[in-house]
Amino acid sequence: MQVAMPNPFSFHLIATDGSARSGEIATAHGVVRTPAFMPVGTQAAIKGVHHDDVRASGADIMLGNTYHLMLRPGAERVAALGGLHEFMRWPYPILTDSGGFQVMSLSGLRKVAEAGVSFRSHIDGAMVELTPERAIEVQSLLGSDIAMQLDECVSLPAERGDIARAMELSLRWAERCKRAFEGAAAGRALFGIVQGGDDPSLREAGARALVDIGFDGYAIGGLAVGEPQEVMLKIVAETAPALPAQRPRYLMGVGTPGDLLEAMARGIDMFDCVLPTRNGRHGLAFTRCGPINIKNAHHADDPRPLDAASRCPAARDFSRAYLHHLFKAGEALGGTLLSVVNLFYYQDLMAGARGAIAAGRFADYAAETREQWTAKRDRKLP
Amino acid sequence: MQVAMPNPFSFHLIATDGSARSGEIATAHGVVRTPAFMPVGTQAAIKGVHHDDVRASGADIMLGNTYHLMLRPGAERVAALGGLHEFMRWPYPILTDSGGFQVMSLSGLRKVAEAGVSFRSHIDGAMVELTPERAIEVQSLLGSDIAMQLDECVSLPAERGDIARAMELSLRWAERCKRAFEGAAAGRALFGIVQGGDDPSLREAGARALVDIGFDGYAIGGLAVGEPQEVMLKIVAETAPALPAQRPRYLMGVGTPGDLLEAMARGIDMFDCVLPTRNGRHGLAFTRCGPINIKNAHHADDPRPLDAASRCPAARDFSRAYLHHLFKAGEALGGTLLSVVNLFYYQDLMAGARGAIAAGRFADYAAETREQWTAKRDRKLP
Repeated sequence: MQVAMPNPFSFHLIATDGSARSGEIATAHGVVRTPAFMPVGTQAAIKGVHHDDVRASGADIMLGNTYHLMLRPGAERVAALGGLHEFMRWPYPILTDSGGFQVMSLSGLRKVAEAGVSFRSHIDGAMVELTPERAIEVQSLLGSDIAMQLDECVSLPAERGDIARAMELSLRWAERCKRAFEGAAAGRALFGIVQGGDDPSLREAGARALVDIGFDGYAIGGLAVGEPQEVMLKIVAETAPALPAQRPRYLMGVGTPGDLLEAMARGIDMFDCVLPTRNGRHGLAFTRCGPINIKNAHHADDPRPLDAASRCPAARDFSRAYLHHLFKAGEALGGTLLSVVNLFYYQDLMAGARGAIAAGRFADYAAETREQWTAKRDRKLP
Repeated sequence: MQVAMPNPFSFHLIATDGSARSGEIATAHGVVRTPAFMPVGTQAAIKGVHHDDVRASGADIMLGNTYHLMLRPGAERVAALGGLHEFMRWPYPILTDSGGFQVMSLSGLRKVAEAGVSFRSHIDGAMVELTPERAIEVQSLLGSDIAMQLDECVSLPAERGDIARAMELSLRWAERCKRAFEGAAAGRALFGIVQGGDDPSLREAGARALVDIGFDGYAIGGLAVGEPQEVMLKIVAETAPALPAQRPRYLMGVGTPGDLLEAMARGIDMFDCVLPTRNGRHGLAFTRCGPINIKNAHHADDPRPLDAASRCPAARDFSRAYLHHLFKAGEALGGTLLSVVNLFYYQDLMAGARGAIAAGRFADYAAETREQWTAKRDRKLP
C-alpha cells in the first residue's frame, strides 16, 4: 500500500472556458484531474469490475459508500485492516459519502431527529444511529481522502417547507461535521453539501451559509432524485456561482453523459454515478456513436466491435455478436465487459472535456460529442 | 485472429516416469503441454473470467461445449462469424466435446436410437437431432482443433447389460464419426472415447475396438459420473495401458487436484473440469496449503493473502478479509477472483507435474503436494 503522505489537500484551477473549469485536486493518495468522474465502489468494489480495469479506464478517484461499509464489513474492521485503501487495494484517492443518502433510500424504518438519523439496517435489521459526529468518525476510520458532511436529502417533488427544514437541518449538521473533523489526519478534506431542493432561494441561502462555515470543497446534493433534467441544470446554474471559485464543486449522483456535459458547462468539477456499471450489467454500452443496447437481436450476427477506435480493449476486440451472445447466454462476463467499456467511455468523455476546456473550445467539444451520438442514431446505425 | 496453419496435429512424448507421461500436442493454434488441464468454456466463455486471465493462468487449451454452442448461438452462426476461435477471441487451441454427455445430463426428453440421439432443447424446447455425422459437422463449423466422437455415457451404478449396449453403440458411432471426419481441415484431430462403465472387461474390449478404428487420441469417458474415486482410478489404471503410448489420453470431466495427481500417475495426459470456476464462484479456493472456504467467518479479520508466494495476483494481493467481504456482500468480483485463483492453482499443479515427470520424481511431487494440503489442515491452518 502507498503510504499516506502529509501533503495538504489542495485544489487549483488550470483553465476556465465560460463557466467550465479544469483543474487538479491534490490528495495524499495522488492527483485528481478535474472535471473528474468517480466510479462508485459501493461495497469496496466496483460491481463486477476488477480494480485494475477501473484504474486502466483512467479513473483518478473512486467513491465508497459509508452506509454500506459501516454495516458490512464495519468501519472499525476496515480500520483494523489498515483503512479502505489498504482493505480493497486501491492505493489512489477515495471519496466517501456520509451515508445520509443511502439511509434515506435503502433503509425501511428511519427517524430523522436533530441529533441525527436512526435506521434499521437492511442487512440484519439492527437499529443503527448515524449522527454527524459518527458520520465523520466512520469516514476517518475508512481513511477516505475526501469526506462528506452528513445531510438530509429529500426526494423531489416536495413541499417548500419540507425542503427548507431539511436544508436548515443539513446546515446545522454541517457545522457539527466541521467541528468533528478538526484534528482529522493531515491531507484529508471535508466537503459541505448544499441542499434546498428545486427552490432557487433556498439553494442560494444554503450555499452562502455553507460557505460561511467553510469547507475544502462543496457538493450540490439532493438532485437527480426524480426531477426533470432542466430543473437540475437550472439549480446547478444558479448554485455553482454562489460557491467559491477556488474550491472544487461536486454534483452528487449525476449522471448520463449528456448530464455531465451540461453540468460541466455550468461549472461542476466532480461527478459520481452508478450508471456506467449498472447500465453495463444490463447490456447498455455507451459509445462515441451513442448508446448501444447489445441485447437487441440485430447484433446477433454483427462481427463489428462496439468501437474499433476505442482505447478500451473490450470495445475494440470483441464483436457485437459475441457480446450479444454473452448476454443471451447469461454469462456474467458480458456485464463485466460492458461495464468496463462504459467506465472507459466516461473517463474518455472527461479527458476530452479537460482538453477542450484547456483549449478554450468546450462548447464545440460538447456540441460535437452530442452530434456524434445522434448522427449515428438517425442513420439507424449502429 | 491467428490464421490456422496447415500443420498436422501431432503428439510426442517428452518423458515418462513410471506410468506418468509428459509431452506436447501440436495443433494449428499452438502447442499444448501435457499433462494438460483444460478450463471449460461451456458457452464460449469461462464463467466469470476474462480470457486474458485464463491465458495468464497458463492454460494452453480450453474446452467448448458442442451441445450448448449448437443451441446458442448456433454452429452455423459461429462459422459465419469466423469459427469459435475468432468468435470468442481465443486464438489458442480449443477442444470441443461431442455434445453427447450434455444431452444425457441436461436435456429432459431424449431418445437414443441407432441413428443418433434426439432431444428437447433446454433453451426453447425445440426437438433437435444429434447424429454422429452432425456432431462432427457441428465441431467442424466451430473449427475446434480437437473434436470428440459422439458417444453414449451411462450414469453409474448401472446394469452390465446397459453399460455393454451403450459401449457397443458408442463404438458404432465412433466408426461413423471417423468416416464423417475424413476431409476435415488439415491439422484438426478426432479423438475416440472408451466407454464401458465400471466393468474392466467391457473397458478393455472397448479400448481395443476403438484402437482398431484408429484415432488421433483417446478419451476415457463415462467416469466421474457418480462412482467412488477408487473405482474411477481402477478403471483408469486398467484402461490406459490398452491405449497406444504414442497417442494422448484424455480423462473426461475430471476432477479434483487429488484426482488429477492420481490419474497422471496412471498415464493420463489431458483433463477438463468445471471445478476451479464452479468452486471459485461458491467461495472455495484451491491453494498449495489445501482448500480454503473463504466464506467461513474466521477469515473476516484475516489480513493475510490466500498465498503470498502464488504466481496469481489475486491470491497474492488481496487479503482473505477482503475476499471474505466480497462473498458476504454478494459482490460478483469475489467469485471472479477465486475462479482466477483456482485456474492458476490447477495450471501450477500441472506445470509442477510436468517438471517432476521430466525429472523422474513424479511420485515424490505428488506425495509432497498432498502432504502440504493436509499438513496445514491438521494444524487448523488456514
